[in-house]
Amino acid sequence: MGCCVNFQDELKQRTELIEGIIRRFLPKEEGFAKTMAEAMNYSMCAGGKRLRPLLLMETNRMFGGDQALAEPFMAAIEMIHTHSLIHDDLPAIDNDDYRRGRLTTHKVYGEAMGVLSGVALLNYAYETMLGAFDMAKDPLTVRKALGIMAKKTGLYGMLGGQSADVENDGKPMDKEMLDYIYRHKTSALIEAPMMAGAVLAGADEAQSAIVEKAAENIGLAFQIEDDILDVVSTSEELGKPVHSDEKNHKVTYVTLFGIEKAAARAASLSKEAADLLESLNQKNEFLIELISYLISRRN
Amino acid sequence: MGCCVNFQDELKQRTELIEGIIRRFLPKEEGFAKTMAEAMNYSMCAGGKRLRPLLLMETNRMFGGDQALAEPFMAAIEMIHTHSLIHDDLPAIDNDDYRRGRLTTHKVYGEAMGVLSGVALLNYAYETMLGAFDMAKDPLTVRKALGIMAKKTGLYGMLGGQSADVENDGKPMDKEMLDYIYRHKTSALIEAPMMAGAVLAGADEAQSAIVEKAAENIGLAFQIEDDILDVVSTSEELGKPVHSDEKNHKVTYVTLFGIEKAAARAASLSKEAADLLESLNQKNEFLIELISYLISRRN
Repeated sequence: MGCCVNFQDELKQRTELIEGIIRRFLPKEEGFAKTMAEAMNYSMCAGGKRLRPLLLMETNRMFGGDQALAEPFMAAIEMIHTHSLIHDDLPAIDNDDYRRGRLTTHKVYGEAMGVLSGVALLNYAYETMLGAFDMAKDPLTVRKALGIMAKKTGLYGMLGGQSADVENDGKPMDKEMLDYIYRHKTSALIEAPMMAGAVLAGADEAQSAIVEKAAENIGLAFQIEDDILDVVSTSEELGKPVHSDEKNHKVTYVTLFGIEKAAARAASLSKEAADLLESLNQKNEFLIELISYLISRRN
Repeated sequence: MGCCVNFQDELKQRTELIEGIIRRFLPKEEGFAKTMAEAMNYSMCAGGKRLRPLLLMETNRMFGGDQALAEPFMAAIEMIHTHSLIHDDLPAIDNDDYRRGRLTTHKVYGEAMGVLSGVALLNYAYETMLGAFDMAKDPLTVRKALGIMAKKTGLYGMLGGQSADVENDGKPMDKEMLDYIYRHKTSALIEAPMMAGAVLAGADEAQSAIVEKAAENIGLAFQIEDDILDVVSTSEELGKPVHSDEKNHKVTYVTLFGIEKAAARAASLSKEAADLLESLNQKNEFLIELISYLISRRN
């Protein structure tokens, strides 16, 4: 399955649609906390693939969901993701001055505002999602989706993964620990939008569990692909510095298993994810193609 | 109205009850993110007055609420408050090494974990509150309480106040800006538990608005009282360094108006709060006495 012209066109169209949805949910830059709203919007408007809202929208569509109900969640998952990037870039964590070619939030607004506006985005994600109750036929569907988002974001999800990552920084790590970190730091924020998208469209527990497993594999494959790109790309191709893992003595799938084995693992995880989604007998060809596209960014 | 022996006994009993409730909702310290759970619990178990859960419980009781439904919210408001303290203490914000006589979270667990465990507490507050849906007769009551908590915590509440505080640090400020900061940085996290307590017990919009106004006054009076204590106490009495506002050239109610006028304002705000609550014709003598006690910590 390649990236045909149609797929690229569709991807572009959908990404533009998502940009519009996200913008509708951003806070107004006014009042005494204007600077905080500006800092939140600065990072939210810094570009990016909008992959997580896209996965939410497509999984929701696959189960025949009402997009209006999914939209607050689409904006929210991007807020949650962006909040984690702002905090990752802080001096106390990765200490990055640039992201996507622009100064990072704390470089523009100061470190205190970096911490606070990151938190404010996470909190605003909840404020935004709560709005979905006002249009839901069944409030318990929204409650279920909220529960997924909260769990996958927190101690037992992405933040737990970040915690283990910070704690093991620069230390030798085995596959078990690396898997934990990838499955939480990365996969959890793929599982959250795909499961929320499914649940908001009425998917049952069994379907939601299959979506979760597929999303876990996609996240893991995506992260392994990142490890590979850091080694084989030029910084022009990647749009960010390469060989950073080597410089930071970071343990990755590539340092543990070598490029070839890492690439084979990413491919098999991606295949398994597509098979799982196809087993649901819900048709979304674009989603299947998207997964394949995500894991073959080198082509 | 003084602090009679009975009131002190009741306060002690209720605080112990609340300690037990909070402990029930804390995360388990296990698995790969054990250190993060430890850091969250370290700060949650550092003592403190548990004022916000107490206000939530008493307001809920005043409106005849079911305490079981309020309990997740009681634990959650303390998590939200504690998250803000962890971040306040960070080097990039107030740079404090000690709080309540113990090393601050980032001094024990490192700055990265300070940022992340603070966020994790905020997120865990939402996970905890979502549990209330499972015991609520009417899910929309929980949704309403969640909406209040989210708004009062975020950009339009406490975090907005912190943002303005950080931005104006060391700058001259007028009463309007100082009022904004106090009403958001401090009052918002008094409004949240009192309004949530009321709404969970079935208070209507009009009642909730009166509670909000009373809570706003309580928060403002409480903050002004803090300004006064910083000037008139010894560090033994206060349990933390005194004259810190003067050292940090901080604009406060005392620097703007002097001690006497500040004290008179705190007293009149406190009186107004009690009058507002009594106008509701819902009886809770303990709550009224608590307010008076909070604003007369010098006696």
